[in-house]
Amino acid sequence: MTQAVRHNSMRARNLGVVLGEVRRSGPVTRAALAEITGLTKTTVSKMVGDLIEAGMVTESGALRDGERGRPGTAVALSGRRVAALGLEINVDYLSACVVDLTLAVRLRYTQAVDNRTSSPVETLSHLEELAHRAVDEAHGEGLSIAGSTLAVPGPVDGGLVHAAPNLGWHDVRVSDLLDFPVEVDNEANLAALGELWFGSVPGDFLHVSGEIGVGAGLVVGGTLFRGARGLAGELGHVVVSPDGPACRCGGRGCLEQYAGQDALLRAAGLAGVPDGVSTLLAHLHAGERDSLEACERAGQALGVALTSAVHLMDPGTIVLGGVFARLFPWIRGSAHKTMTSRLGVMRRAVPELTVSRLGGDAATLGAAGQVIHRVIADPWSHL
Amino acid sequence: MTQAVRHNSMRARNLGVVLGEVRRSGPVTRAALAEITGLTKTTVSKMVGDLIEAGMVTESGALRDGERGRPGTAVALSGRRVAALGLEINVDYLSACVVDLTLAVRLRYTQAVDNRTSSPVETLSHLEELAHRAVDEAHGEGLSIAGSTLAVPGPVDGGLVHAAPNLGWHDVRVSDLLDFPVEVDNEANLAALGELWFGSVPGDFLHVSGEIGVGAGLVVGGTLFRGARGLAGELGHVVVSPDGPACRCGGRGCLEQYAGQDALLRAAGLAGVPDGVSTLLAHLHAGERDSLEACERAGQALGVALTSAVHLMDPGTIVLGGVFARLFPWIRGSAHKTMTSRLGVMRRAVPELTVSRLGGDAATLGAAGQVIHRVIADPWSHL
Repeated sequence: MTQAVRHNSMRARNLGVVLGEVRRSGPVTRAALAEITGLTKTTVSKMVGDLIEAGMVTESGALRDGERGRPGTAVALSGRRVAALGLEINVDYLSACVVDLTLAVRLRYTQAVDNRTSSPVETLSHLEELAHRAVDEAHGEGLSIAGSTLAVPGPVDGGLVHAAPNLGWHDVRVSDLLDFPVEVDNEANLAALGELWFGSVPGDFLHVSGEIGVGAGLVVGGTLFRGARGLAGELGHVVVSPDGPACRCGGRGCLEQYAGQDALLRAAGLAGVPDGVSTLLAHLHAGERDSLEACERAGQALGVALTSAVHLMDPGTIVLGGVFARLFPWIRGSAHKTMTSRLGVMRRAVPELTVSRLGGDAATLGAAGQVIHRVIADPWSHL
Repeated sequence: MTQAVRHNSMRARNLGVVLGEVRRSGPVTRAALAEITGLTKTTVSKMVGDLIEAGMVTESGALRDGERGRPGTAVALSGRRVAALGLEINVDYLSACVVDLTLAVRLRYTQAVDNRTSSPVETLSHLEELAHRAVDEAHGEGLSIAGSTLAVPGPVDGGLVHAAPNLGWHDVRVSDLLDFPVEVDNEANLAALGELWFGSVPGDFLHVSGEIGVGAGLVVGGTLFRGARGLAGELGHVVVSPDGPACRCGGRGCLEQYAGQDALLRAAGLAGVPDGVSTLLAHLHAGERDSLEACERAGQALGVALTSAVHLMDPGTIVLGGVFARLFPWIRGSAHKTMTSRLGVMRRAVPELTVSRLGGDAATLGAAGQVIHRVIADPWSHL
């Protein structure tokens, strides 16, 4: 390693240490940053200068420094320049959002489109348009996009979407079909990270993404559990009844066949109705019996699958997101009752069922948030 | 912090660093230890002296030091003094083992006893006898017991066995009923650690403990996954069929009701037969039809539960232990077939089913191994 390379690697490390501390403690004075990080004041000042130039931090008015009693200038994260693009392809919509370095949401687009009837190339071409629109508008606001992550409804293994059965995708390498660089991750994983960073639930939960597919992401101690190959959390294919209806995954009686959005609408007699979930909600509010029963039965199946998930994964709480968040008042009761009757003897406390406030945006927000967290961990690579 | 306390805390840390490195790299010279750890040669020599005195390391003949070409004395872990006691209470046996600091197994006892018919106090009094016998024999060999861990067949929450349904235990605080200090942990967790430290499978697997109860322990990257409250891995109560036979856990159709040892013997027409598993094995070898069918059906149920576990936890491989290890040739086929047909579309590779070489000893070995790993991480507390 030459001396210059070693010097750069040390600067890169220090820059990450300083920016990380600004995120945790900001607004914070340079003196306090030096004290917390153990770096010299000269180093801290140099790093802060670089970060100001990169538009990652900003200096605000005088802040009294508690330790020393002298006023100093406060340094805080800046949302004015660096931002990230979060994207999602789901079965019946595309969405995009732009989040700045302070995790403030700057733009959101959602476009209803049935991606089951189009090829991966067509769907990704629609996504490209949406992404370009979002990036153009972000540029108009003076933002620069540091990177983007795309959420897809299926397991992702090294950038390859091996199977997204609800989209009809097999072995699609997304990055080959887009004209901008993107990282691809599973929708349920990113929704769990969205809940962690943008939601209201503390760091130990199983986030359940109810869409046409059903997925889950387990967060333990503030970290997403991914399993050995990054394929953990496929709650939608947990077996509810081994001889139940055939599922697109090749199995039978998977949770999706009882509590996925399509199954739910079918059970409520609303299959194929445009904007079926809104119609279902109207029926539920009106006390329509088929709709109430469909939700109760979906809640029971969800309770059975969550019983297996709790026995295996031991989550702190369970957060219902996506369509389950909208239907929460009508599915919570039977899901909770099923879990309590099955888990009560073995556990002193059955995990609480709560509702996500993010609804359908969780995955897109998590996708953008993932980029922001990487920028903060390694600002040097984004200067 | 006084200077003396700070000095002791630094010595404690350095002692752990040196002993850890001896475990990883030993036999190793003092010079090499200094180079790897970054400690001065004087500090390393002092630490090695303390560890020799404590009987934790030993000095062997000259070892040529590759770096410098000078011969040095090699330092290695010693199995001569420090040891750990591993204990297990299971439904139909008690067991104990003593493992020394090099993880060599020094003593093993297993005692067949039906713990369903005795109270926690009686069972723990039998265990006490077994433990004292093991400790006495270990003392006779010059070993000193640094600590003990007890494996129990049920979830353990902060030392409390809330429910071990197969033992009929509820809210038993084991340490209050024993005359020696012991840490209590779940049998399936400790069996997974036993497989990690004493078995032959690398660091990413789900270890399934088939006994009268069925449990599992997930190891990811060489670390046991415990969940939010340490209650993860209860594979035996994963729902195979939601309206199936009632289980002692309060649920219905749990895996244990299809593939637990009692259920298997019942299905094979061997309920209540003394040493039923050996009889079952004899029948299987003889090609007896009821026994073959019982194993095939148990394998199918195991395949359904493992399908849910793979979807949720994404293990590297799956290791079958306990009674499943003895029955492996007769349950593997149907379990593998069930998993492949259900998982094949979603995953490029279905996790391999392998067999544990440790059999029924995994939990007891893991219990002792856990103590040894703690001694090596913090030798100062055990001087």
